[in-house]
Amino acid sequence: MKKKVNAAILIIGNEILSGRTQDRNIAFISSWLNTKCGISVNEVRIIPDIEKIIIENVRLLSKKFNYLFTTGGIGPTHDDITAQSISKAFRLKYEFHQEAYGILEKYYGKKKFNDGRKKMAKMPRGAKLIYNPSSAAPGFMTKNVLSLPGVPSILNSMIENCKRYLIKGLKVHSKTVSLYTVESNIAKNLGQIQKKYKKFVDIGSYPFFRLGKIGVAVVTRSTSLSKLKNVNKELMQLVKLKKIQILKI
Amino acid sequence: MKKKVNAAILIIGNEILSGRTQDRNIAFISSWLNTKCGISVNEVRIIPDIEKIIIENVRLLSKKFNYLFTTGGIGPTHDDITAQSISKAFRLKYEFHQEAYGILEKYYGKKKFNDGRKKMAKMPRGAKLIYNPSSAAPGFMTKNVLSLPGVPSILNSMIENCKRYLIKGLKVHSKTVSLYTVESNIAKNLGQIQKKYKKFVDIGSYPFFRLGKIGVAVVTRSTSLSKLKNVNKELMQLVKLKKIQILKI
Repeated sequence: MKKKVNAAILIIGNEILSGRTQDRNIAFISSWLNTKCGISVNEVRIIPDIEKIIIENVRLLSKKFNYLFTTGGIGPTHDDITAQSISKAFRLKYEFHQEAYGILEKYYGKKKFNDGRKKMAKMPRGAKLIYNPSSAAPGFMTKNVLSLPGVPSILNSMIENCKRYLIKGLKVHSKTVSLYTVESNIAKNLGQIQKKYKKFVDIGSYPFFRLGKIGVAVVTRSTSLSKLKNVNKELMQLVKLKKIQILKI
Repeated sequence: MKKKVNAAILIIGNEILSGRTQDRNIAFISSWLNTKCGISVNEVRIIPDIEKIIIENVRLLSKKFNYLFTTGGIGPTHDDITAQSISKAFRLKYEFHQEAYGILEKYYGKKKFNDGRKKMAKMPRGAKLIYNPSSAAPGFMTKNVLSLPGVPSILNSMIENCKRYLIKGLKVHSKTVSLYTVESNIAKNLGQIQKKYKKFVDIGSYPFFRLGKIGVAVVTRSTSLSKLKNVNKELMQLVKLKKIQILKI
């Protein structure tokens, strides 16, 4: 029987911490894991390119969750230290991965295969490759840690190649109902419904502004489709009772 | 004399973790702290709406950094548990804040000031208010923890009101040079420059794709303007030597 499988994401990169770059990988990886693999992301951390801090977080998060995804720091420059940090975290040798070396040498050609590019073939010993259809340099999996690049378009092109390494979990079903009301109008009733279904369904409510109108998106999530339906039935009764206009179900 | 001041950000919200909502607060808060207050964000965490986890992280991050910013979970619904969790984290009474109560009562009018709305006036004892010009419900500061809402437009409107509570740090200057080259072409030389200025300047390199062309943005950051200039001089020498086309300085 399938069970709940979880993961954490570790974003490695000063450019995200400084606010220079808007992260787009967290939402992408989380949605993909959720919908395609039934895996829930339970924690995300963003940390700087500092070896000691990377090592600490890789050790802790890989122990605490079923999988850890890292993004960033696997390129050719001096600030790309993810592979060597993960090697140290697990006390594995940091060395050329023969297959990765071959892929990169073929991609660049022997003459243009310089030191920076060769660096991208160095990984923790025993790492399994995550193939990269857009720019050759592979990601890699070390124990339960999957390391991907930071550039969103490249990461997106590689994500399907992670699938073979992941155990599928129970799919979390979700339903969003967008209402033209304010949170405080339904807060009490929503709280009662949540209490009743505490163990089975998560209810979240998120205010939005659209076309000058205020609304609330009520998101329900559960691994049980029937429990989810029951909650949404009660939600609809509430909507009817309060005469709330529905924007979208 | 000014010194380095740092902060962490704690994003509280299942909707960000599940990938349903793309976070936009991290980059905004980080940039604002950097440019307006000389405060560097050194760590970000995204966690679910679970009391035990919020308490744990508030305790740890408020101890580890000069300031902690939290976003999310201060609305009227059952899943808004930031204020009560922070009260527990610091063993403070969770109670009505008189001024906040007054602000909200005035905003909604006595008749429409229901339980959900009253909840937004409950805070850890002794909290200082962060005024909210767009939707009245204030944020609050408890010890060194500043709590803001999750909705970006509201958060953005409140951020200037955090300033009075923050000690300004040393401003970090930064310069970005966008080059039409690939990272591996300059990796070795950049590494050498970084080594030379290790203590004073941080050099990051970030690949980009623009109008079908590949490039690298080299970002240099330092609290010393003169050291930053020296590094950029060396960078320009490298650009000249390698005959690299410059897109933007």
